[in-house]
Amino acid sequence: MENCVNLADLRRAAIRRAHPIVFDYIDGGADDEHTLARNATAFADYELMFRVLVGVESVDPGTRILGQQTTLPYIASPAAGNRLFHTEGELAVARASAEAGIIYCLSTLASASIEAVAEVSKGPKWFQLYVWKDRALVKEMLDRARAAGYQALILTVDFPIAGNRERDLKNQLFIPPKIRPRHVWDALKRPGWTVDYLFSPPIRYANLSQDSPAISLADFVAAQLNAAFDWHDVEWLLGEWNGPSVIKGIVRTDDARRAVATGFNGIMVSNHGGRQLDFSPAPIDVLGSIIDEVGAAAEVILDGGVRRGTDVLKALALGARAVSAARPYLYGLAAAGYPGVRRALDLVDRSIRRDMALLGVRSVAEIDSSFVRRTPRQA
Amino acid sequence: MENCVNLADLRRAAIRRAHPIVFDYIDGGADDEHTLARNATAFADYELMFRVLVGVESVDPGTRILGQQTTLPYIASPAAGNRLFHTEGELAVARASAEAGIIYCLSTLASASIEAVAEVSKGPKWFQLYVWKDRALVKEMLDRARAAGYQALILTVDFPIAGNRERDLKNQLFIPPKIRPRHVWDALKRPGWTVDYLFSPPIRYANLSQDSPAISLADFVAAQLNAAFDWHDVEWLLGEWNGPSVIKGIVRTDDARRAVATGFNGIMVSNHGGRQLDFSPAPIDVLGSIIDEVGAAAEVILDGGVRRGTDVLKALALGARAVSAARPYLYGLAAAGYPGVRRALDLVDRSIRRDMALLGVRSVAEIDSSFVRRTPRQA
Amino acid sequence: MENCVNLADLRRAAIRRAHPIVFDYIDGGADDEHTLARNATAFADYELMFRVLVGVESVDPGTRILGQQTTLPYIASPAAGNRLFHTEGELAVARASAEAGIIYCLSTLASASIEAVAEVSKGPKWFQLYVWKDRALVKEMLDRARAAGYQALILTVDFPIAGNRERDLKNQLFIPPKIRPRHVWDALKRPGWTVDYLFSPPIRYANLSQDSPAISLADFVAAQLNAAFDWHDVEWLLGEWNGPSVIKGIVRTDDARRAVATGFNGIMVSNHGGRQLDFSPAPIDVLGSIIDEVGAAAEVILDGGVRRGTDVLKALALGARAVSAARPYLYGLAAAGYPGVRRALDLVDRSIRRDMALLGVRSVAEIDSSFVRRTPRQA
Amino acid sequence: MENCVNLADLRRAAIRRAHPIVFDYIDGGADDEHTLARNATAFADYELMFRVLVGVESVDPGTRILGQQTTLPYIASPAAGNRLFHTEGELAVARASAEAGIIYCLSTLASASIEAVAEVSKGPKWFQLYVWKDRALVKEMLDRARAAGYQALILTVDFPIAGNRERDLKNQLFIPPKIRPRHVWDALKRPGWTVDYLFSPPIRYANLSQDSPAISLADFVAAQLNAAFDWHDVEWLLGEWNGPSVIKGIVRTDDARRAVATGFNGIMVSNHGGRQLDFSPAPIDVLGSIIDEVGAAAEVILDGGVRRGTDVLKALALGARAVSAARPYLYGLAAAGYPGVRRALDLVDRSIRRDMALLGVRSVAEIDSSFVRRTPRQA
Repeated sequence: MENCVNLADLRRAAIRRAHPIVFDYIDGGADDEHTLARNATAFADYELMFRVLVGVESVDPGTRILGQQTTLPYIASPAAGNRLFHTEGELAVARASAEAGIIYCLSTLASASIEAVAEVSKGPKWFQLYVWKDRALVKEMLDRARAAGYQALILTVDFPIAGNRERDLKNQLFIPPKIRPRHVWDALKRPGWTVDYLFSPPIRYANLSQDSPAISLADFVAAQLNAAFDWHDVEWLLGEWNGPSVIKGIVRTDDARRAVATGFNGIMVSNHGGRQLDFSPAPIDVLGSIIDEVGAAAEVILDGGVRRGTDVLKALALGARAVSAARPYLYGLAAAGYPGVRRALDLVDRSIRRDMALLGVRSVAEIDSSFVRRTPRQA
Repeated sequence: MENCVNLADLRRAAIRRAHPIVFDYIDGGADDEHTLARNATAFADYELMFRVLVGVESVDPGTRILGQQTTLPYIASPAAGNRLFHTEGELAVARASAEAGIIYCLSTLASASIEAVAEVSKGPKWFQLYVWKDRALVKEMLDRARAAGYQALILTVDFPIAGNRERDLKNQLFIPPKIRPRHVWDALKRPGWTVDYLFSPPIRYANLSQDSPAISLADFVAAQLNAAFDWHDVEWLLGEWNGPSVIKGIVRTDDARRAVATGFNGIMVSNHGGRQLDFSPAPIDVLGSIIDEVGAAAEVILDGGVRRGTDVLKALALGARAVSAARPYLYGLAAAGYPGVRRALDLVDRSIRRDMALLGVRSVAEIDSSFVRRTPRQA
Repeated sequence: MENCVNLADLRRAAIRRAHPIVFDYIDGGADDEHTLARNATAFADYELMFRVLVGVESVDPGTRILGQQTTLPYIASPAAGNRLFHTEGELAVARASAEAGIIYCLSTLASASIEAVAEVSKGPKWFQLYVWKDRALVKEMLDRARAAGYQALILTVDFPIAGNRERDLKNQLFIPPKIRPRHVWDALKRPGWTVDYLFSPPIRYANLSQDSPAISLADFVAAQLNAAFDWHDVEWLLGEWNGPSVIKGIVRTDDARRAVATGFNGIMVSNHGGRQLDFSPAPIDVLGSIIDEVGAAAEVILDGGVRRGTDVLKALALGARAVSAARPYLYGLAAAGYPGVRRALDLVDRSIRRDMALLGVRSVAEIDSSFVRRTPRQA
Repeated sequence: MENCVNLADLRRAAIRRAHPIVFDYIDGGADDEHTLARNATAFADYELMFRVLVGVESVDPGTRILGQQTTLPYIASPAAGNRLFHTEGELAVARASAEAGIIYCLSTLASASIEAVAEVSKGPKWFQLYVWKDRALVKEMLDRARAAGYQALILTVDFPIAGNRERDLKNQLFIPPKIRPRHVWDALKRPGWTVDYLFSPPIRYANLSQDSPAISLADFVAAQLNAAFDWHDVEWLLGEWNGPSVIKGIVRTDDARRAVATGFNGIMVSNHGGRQLDFSPAPIDVLGSIIDEVGAAAEVILDGGVRRGTDVLKALALGARAVSAARPYLYGLAAAGYPGVRRALDLVDRSIRRDMALLGVRSVAEIDSSFVRRTPRQA
């Protein structure tokens, strides 16, 4: 892990260790992956106007997010079925996040239970929810999350149906995965992942009462999620939860406004990491307009494409309260389990601190819009 | 065909099955193919602003085009000599289009007759016309199309002479094709196409009384079409037809205005798939100005570069009534005949429905300009 | 030559036949060749808004340039030492230009004499002048050009000293060339060019009284040209010539205005084909501002980057009277001598006529600014 | 060296001669090297509007910088530890700079002493300072620099901590370098550099009293520099120096204004060659705004990305007094020692003179904003 000096190195390490159908599931996006690519490359359209001679002998990247103090303006985004990537799964991520002092978001579709995660993590935790058909199941999950000490609810709204992830289609990825004859050769070349996978308990959606059948994500979603879910259902849900809440998957100002009116405390600007509707705008490209619209009434979090400390600082300079990301820790997890996640979060922490000093700010409160501008490129 | 999960896969399948000179005829464009490329890539300059929590459990992409109800806002564009690509030719395309519930446009230069197509298709059908020198021939075709139940006439106006298609020039493509010594090796490597081609009746322009000589398209056009054709001839033609009519090949607002004044009900914004004048503008780039000009008086259809459901939705968000495309079904036809066309149209149907749900719309009527914006890219 | 269907094919044929140091001399530009590349690629920033149904059965690309009727709005630009590229040299180009009905510009540094060219060409001819140190030599050349029937003078003003052509530097190109040991292998691989070169009379600047020493172009220019030449010298020169005159190498509006005030009838917008100051603007990118400034008082000609009929039509739509180009015929000359030049000019002629028909214009007088617009590209 | 006709050639020569870990230290930048690349490529966004017929038989690129007459508007930027690249180190660069008539800037972290450099160079010299923890050391250095005849002080302010130079991290570069087992093979392939390195006195920071331990630059900087240094410390420093002064590493107009108010005579617009905060703006892209802000009160110098004479002229046309660069001479030094530096500076000198003549200016005073414009590129 010490040889991995940035997240791109961790990604390459994940390619070497994890089965390709698993790596593709982390790495891929919808259709032609325009949005997937744009999420990250859009950051290059923004420059950082560093300030000098302010005295940066001590830099503090700490902030408050929905009232909770965190070490970094950085959240570990929810991601489904982490045991697919490494047998240590969500437990490794939750533990490392708590140690790093950042908020960990547990997915409804996690392969570790609400309670098991709470046991390994005393840090700040949020619980992510998809819009299930079964309201009783939803209420049960909310109760469990509350009981286990999760402080906020994240509702993912950009997933009414599954996106068209062609890598997974071509890989014939089922969850839990079925190793088909065409996958054997790749499995043999990744003995570490394969042995772990074969000798571990079967991967399942740990928070669902029923057993998970091995089917494609699209089929599972069509069967379990509620595409009819709308703003009225949200009102019911927020009433049930009655606590801090974040809506995830907003790119339009009218949706942001309505989310605030409906009672959300946080807006996560996101396109699901480019995995749903291709040609969705990059979060960094709509962040400003969302903040103009609801920045006074809600905390805005950018989710998508963040890889470097400079990306974090650009989002903050444009007005975000924090950023959120899953792929960085997933690359670490797939590469090496818990130590890989630690390495990922450590690189994030170090790059944010270093880049704050180089930008000329001692605290996130000092970062305003004067520190960012559009790259004036024409040629 | 099940392995083809998008149109790019079908295109690759067509490369493998069809003789290169035939594939190039489908695939190529004029001069340096700037417009050919731009037609498709221009869509990347537009982003989709998806909406959330509207309840998309049922999505209906149906619409009315020139008064006809269709399953999709998607038309099968006219294309010449389909038997070149697969022995099943236009009949396969017409049949699959009818089954998909979309409008099929039969080319004047089809290799199947007006009547034969009508026999296999009870779905909506339009008849496409080039501007022939021989007015009697035109009247005869109009009468036959009317008699056979074609509901609208499409007049192609961006083809006064043939464009400079250098792939065809270098391939020495004649229609019907002559297999020259230099083509034999490629023919041997595509036994499926070659056997079909050798054991089928000769390809001919089925709606022309005279026999088609084997000459280049440019020479045929120069001999048969009327480069002198102008708006006065159009008035005569519309008088003869006296029914719903669409003009195909418009990029200028003044031409669109005149077309409406002359009596056309529909405007097909098109540059002939990049096969005529290179550096013609991409249809998506002029669509807005045409709709501003004549959108209240005529239905505007975008033809050119459409490959994904997202492309369709962008055109609709910019105000188009529908899109039109030929290459997608031609790739399917060249790859596998009727099942290939079915696959192509099925992929189109599924992607439009999925992308509507992800965009947050339940019907095409809901799609307005708030769902699209220019990609804010500089770097 | 029949296999060459465009100028890029002719260029490739030139690579195959001519010695690399000679090909590089035609093909190369200054410094990093930014301007060389931009001259051609800038045309892609302009789109053609074709018009339909105007009746294009007969298209006439003829025009008048400085009072002379020509078949095409296209001029053969001056180029030095054509015998370097093919033993037939300027005589082949002049003859083919006359046959094509276009204006031929003979360079001061031609390897054929003013009189020899006049003998093979009864077509329109202009004489190009560099700013020599020796005024007597200049007067003598003007007298000879007038006597031989050259109708206009072109003064090249973007060449006070030689540009930094690094290909020639690295090739150690002298004029006439010296075949050094390192060039022998390439010479052996191009026997056609090499035999011609060895068995032809030595290449010399045919219009200079003194013998040409074999030195680099930069050294020759430093010795012979007058870097001190300024607008006062121009007044003297125009007084001596007392006939139609064109200034070549203008990109600024203030220079264009002064040129008109000084008495020039034509302004050739040019950066010497990207061979002088790198990062000079592409002619197409400054054409509009120059025409706005002096279009009413002088004829403006675009020189640089023209390869396709569409390029010609874009320049005309932006207000140019004609375009001018040397590389197209030089590629033809280097590829095959006179037949190569014929092919180049034939391709130019055919592409202009075809593209006019596709654009929907019957004469160059019909081409106005409505036919061109900037490509609206962002992504 | 004669085969090197531009700085890119010298860079390639440096690759061939110097050990890769040394070459990477010269060549590399921070993070993903966006800013490193952009510093140079941003120049392509600016075009040069050359002027004609002004008489350029004699061109003088001389200018005054902070009151000192120099041969060129070009400064040799400070760079640490030059003996790493070639055993002749700073002495070679200082000597060649003096011979070229340009200002040489000696780094605090030089591997040659203030006095040794003064001995070999009677030309204009500036002394660069980092912000050391030890004020006594700073005072001592200022006294030595003054005594040795350095005319101005440059304070580098964009280096509160070390940037994230991943090439150096991966190379495990220490200063002085430790040849680890993994470096031996590359050392054997560069015998010239290796023999020099092994048989020379150890590389040390010659102006520091203590011995330099072999540690990474980041660790050294953290131990020795004062990240708390701020504008108040600067006031103390300028009081101690009491002479001409330049601040290096400014990209913001507010910092430029404050620098002038604090007493600096010169502003060096710089991002430390892309080695500190990635996504800092390219100097050429912020130059105009800085000059608008403080151009009347201070001399503005552009540092970063300059490789061609055209780059220099663009900066001057935008209002810079001069440019500054280190990599060009470092490539020369690494390639061949003193003759390499000579070659680099000779190429710079020749290209500035040639490009002034081609631009149509006889002195730097003639270069105004009419000579530059943004490249109007869209496609």
